[in-house]
Amino acid sequence: MPSQFKQLDPPQRVLLGPGPSEVPARVLQAMASPTVGHLDPSYLAIMDETREMLREVFQTKNELTLAISGTGSAGMEACVVNLIEPSDEMIVCVNGVFGTRMRDVAQRYGATVHSIEADWGTTISVEQVAAALEAHPKTKVLGIVHAETSTGAHQPLEEISRLVQKAGALLLVDAVTSLGGMEVRVDDWQIDAIYSGTQKCLSCPPGLSPVSFSPRAVAAMEARQTPVTSWYLDLSMLRNYWGSDRVYHHTAPINMTYALRESLAIILEEGLENRIARHLRNHLILRAGLEAMGLKWVPEHSLTTLNAVHVPDGADDARVRSRLLGEYGIEIGAGLGPFKGRAWRVGLMGHSSSRRNVMLLLAALESILCDEGVAISQGAAISAASKQCC
Amino acid sequence: MPSQFKQLDPPQRVLLGPGPSEVPARVLQAMASPTVGHLDPSYLAIMDETREMLREVFQTKNELTLAISGTGSAGMEACVVNLIEPSDEMIVCVNGVFGTRMRDVAQRYGATVHSIEADWGTTISVEQVAAALEAHPKTKVLGIVHAETSTGAHQPLEEISRLVQKAGALLLVDAVTSLGGMEVRVDDWQIDAIYSGTQKCLSCPPGLSPVSFSPRAVAAMEARQTPVTSWYLDLSMLRNYWGSDRVYHHTAPINMTYALRESLAIILEEGLENRIARHLRNHLILRAGLEAMGLKWVPEHSLTTLNAVHVPDGADDARVRSRLLGEYGIEIGAGLGPFKGRAWRVGLMGHSSSRRNVMLLLAALESILCDEGVAISQGAAISAASKQCC
Repeated sequence: MPSQFKQLDPPQRVLLGPGPSEVPARVLQAMASPTVGHLDPSYLAIMDETREMLREVFQTKNELTLAISGTGSAGMEACVVNLIEPSDEMIVCVNGVFGTRMRDVAQRYGATVHSIEADWGTTISVEQVAAALEAHPKTKVLGIVHAETSTGAHQPLEEISRLVQKAGALLLVDAVTSLGGMEVRVDDWQIDAIYSGTQKCLSCPPGLSPVSFSPRAVAAMEARQTPVTSWYLDLSMLRNYWGSDRVYHHTAPINMTYALRESLAIILEEGLENRIARHLRNHLILRAGLEAMGLKWVPEHSLTTLNAVHVPDGADDARVRSRLLGEYGIEIGAGLGPFKGRAWRVGLMGHSSSRRNVMLLLAALESILCDEGVAISQGAAISAASKQCC
Repeated sequence: MPSQFKQLDPPQRVLLGPGPSEVPARVLQAMASPTVGHLDPSYLAIMDETREMLREVFQTKNELTLAISGTGSAGMEACVVNLIEPSDEMIVCVNGVFGTRMRDVAQRYGATVHSIEADWGTTISVEQVAAALEAHPKTKVLGIVHAETSTGAHQPLEEISRLVQKAGALLLVDAVTSLGGMEVRVDDWQIDAIYSGTQKCLSCPPGLSPVSFSPRAVAAMEARQTPVTSWYLDLSMLRNYWGSDRVYHHTAPINMTYALRESLAIILEEGLENRIARHLRNHLILRAGLEAMGLKWVPEHSLTTLNAVHVPDGADDARVRSRLLGEYGIEIGAGLGPFKGRAWRVGLMGHSSSRRNVMLLLAALESILCDEGVAISQGAAISAASKQCC
């Protein structure tokens, strides 16, 4: 009997938005391997390999390194809820969607939150952090976004980490859009808790959130007076499943773990340094091209993985994005918050960060903007990008 | 350069444990389709189809029907945290691991919990529920497990539902191990909130949790005085992404949704009634065979999807399971809690519920038990099972 349902047939997009990024065929194939049980010896070995590779990508020796069974936002919530007890004080740095989200999460779980705010597109200054830590000496955790996906701002962390450590607080970092594409040195930078997502620079489908906790963060967890509010995200139980005890907690997303393992293997085969250099190289090519066209970057300190640019005068934001998708199958991201309708977000993450994609986007965008009658420097983008290639 | 990592090569198991169940090749192939963006028009159409099919499988018209981006336990937590505010009263029926877990979750989120307890392997009686509702007239939610995966007990719901409705409370049901394999009539049985998992009778890899809320449950959500504690599981935001507004919440697990859509299509092609009948048929064949061998069922009212049987005298629980896995690639489940070392749990769920698997298990188990010197009725299982087939 023929199926009453159409065959699933999603289009092959060029994914240059804020995530998901393109997933290599090897990862999709690994994900389609036969499902085994979550306590099968073969799966336990895959978990072990996955956490070992995660440690390499996080550049950490942290024992408590694993993948949360949810997307990046679940990782954010896991970090907050395991470190914070009701009434604990937390400083959250807010300069975009994800700092705002972290503050919201912390407040929902009963933390007393002090915000450090900066304009969207800018970064948090060392002085702001120093002042906040001095004003709130009981701060248990300071949360900050390394790579603010909503604005493309790249937050320096090293100096801020020193201040946080000196104040005896814990540093919690959102590395959703940087891990695997930019430098994220968990141990060297003394990051105490960090989370990421699989669908950005790791180029794995969305669904898991790698996290890592330092020994200091683990000690804070163990000193809790109250149970972790979330059962699903309780790391004191999750670590017993990922650790040698293998105590059943929940049924792990087996095939997603296959995919993550494969994507991490690809990263380590390329080499983390090479990969970071590739992200930088393609960012610079894109930048040369778009700036030659006349487009301006939103943040002063830009990520190499996520490029937020102002929509040029005279261009219809939604219409241009829709034409890129319809005519070229290219996805780029819209602006959020104060940048809604005013910025585009071009992701060059993981497998998506290729010269081929950059050149295609430049050509397609130039063609559409010209056709739309937008005043740009015609013919300048490709030659400027080409010069940057050499 | 050759990879320094071994190729991922998980074994092809016969999955007869408490989940995951075997995943049809069609589902694995669908999951390996190209990843698109979570706001791509093609993906939004897939979400719409998925929720429409979920409604059919749940036998409901509930508008708020969707898949939570986590495993079944995340679905449990989502149901509890969206219905319960701190200090709300909840009755939880506890007769196994998953009732115990639901109570734990509710307590963590600040509910005042009243337990109805019954021995593991038995079901909750109508009288117990009536008495509890009378003793606790302010009860907002009564939570109960339809299919207790830890004991194989099958909980009747219809009479209990009438009592809960009459008391003005909401009925929350765990259908992780029954949805798609046994009758689960959400609208007819007046279930207000229900969750399941993808890796049981839906035969999709683990990673998503289908949930459905009745209009009464939605009204309770909308009457909340406090925000939902969990940001990740906040259905008031998730429904705006799954609904026509398409408001970004988190990056959906795209490829897992492909898999779920395909598994639901397979269910609806087979027909829900046919599928439920198949689960019953194979349960009866297994039952005839194991009982002829001399094994006894744990629960009086058994699920057809998950069969908990006592480990026969003289058999070494772990050794027999290990031999099944090592010599035949067959996974069955161990006992939990009071049944640890004393029961086996044989899942016949979704794609795993086939005559082929039943006959293989009977033959393999008989062979191993004989070899182990366990006193069973030799030669009786296959003939008893064969008679049941006709």
